[in-house]
Amino acid sequence: MSTDDNPVLRAIRDRRSIRRYTDEPVADAELTAILEAGRWAPSGLNNQPWRFLAVKRGDPRHERLAGCTKYPHIVRDSAACIAVLLEKEAMYSEIKDRQGAGACIQNMLLAIHALGLGAVWLGQIINDQALSLDALSLDPAQYELEAVVALGHPDQRGSSDRKPLSDLLLEKL
Amino acid sequence: MSTDDNPVLRAIRDRRSIRRYTDEPVADAELTAILEAGRWAPSGLNNQPWRFLAVKRGDPRHERLAGCTKYPHIVRDSAACIAVLLEKEAMYSEIKDRQGAGACIQNMLLAIHALGLGAVWLGQIINDQALSLDALSLDPAQYELEAVVALGHPDQRGSSDRKPLSDLLLEKL
Repeated sequence: MSTDDNPVLRAIRDRRSIRRYTDEPVADAELTAILEAGRWAPSGLNNQPWRFLAVKRGDPRHERLAGCTKYPHIVRDSAACIAVLLEKEAMYSEIKDRQGAGACIQNMLLAIHALGLGAVWLGQIINDQALSLDALSLDPAQYELEAVVALGHPDQRGSSDRKPLSDLLLEKL
Repeated sequence: MSTDDNPVLRAIRDRRSIRRYTDEPVADAELTAILEAGRWAPSGLNNQPWRFLAVKRGDPRHERLAGCTKYPHIVRDSAACIAVLLEKEAMYSEIKDRQGAGACIQNMLLAIHALGLGAVWLGQIINDQALSLDALSLDPAQYELEAVVALGHPDQRGSSDRKPLSDLLLEKL
């Protein structure tokens, strides 16, 4: 199989941030499949420090989350938001647990793309932990918010590009 | 398509850490496809702070890397090691750039699995930055080592399990 035909490599290459969504809700079976993908991320010592809270449009916490970001229209427009948290008691290394959270989020973004849905990784929303955790009625002593993944049925085509590999490789193969 | 048949969801669920490899080398075309997968990771502000250095078995740096970890046999046995680094000047947020590195590493791990190869994310090797960067002849003022991905043709079946989703979900869907 050439790498062009490989469905996993293709998903990795073709996935883009999607910031506009139709009104169609996302089924619970789809949300479950997405969270399952997050669950299978690797972690140092297999500590699995991540916790998830899915908040659907219509839930008052969904609108409250919109008030915690510079991009309220994305949250408001989304069918659901998945808050990805680290349980502080389950952490063993700030660096590695946050890297693991990134792996977990990427698994979910790829799953969302593979299901024909669209999403964006909201990062700015974690800057004010107290505000965002309060919107979710979660205790900042217990949780660190890593990101909010806003998702829905895509109402746009994603764009954005990447540096050529030659700019990232410290040395030719 | 059911989620069971979805090749992306399946790869996410079936990938495991592989720590034993055959003697067969990994082709440059495969290494390129793996690094391409890393290149397509998302980053905050699309800053793409990651840099890659691939070191193959036989390269003196490959053996030097083995001296930087509690798991020298894994490095020694691997066909190649990919050092994933952050270029300090390109970083904008310690938390988000490390999360991004995690997303980048996970893309590569999934690509490796999708190509029928196996890998393990070595995290302990980053604890002594000075030692590991010195083994790679890289400047610690310029780079932060995020992980080393050891890879090759699998000579074992992976195992390891995960917590049930119900333990990770703060609230039922």
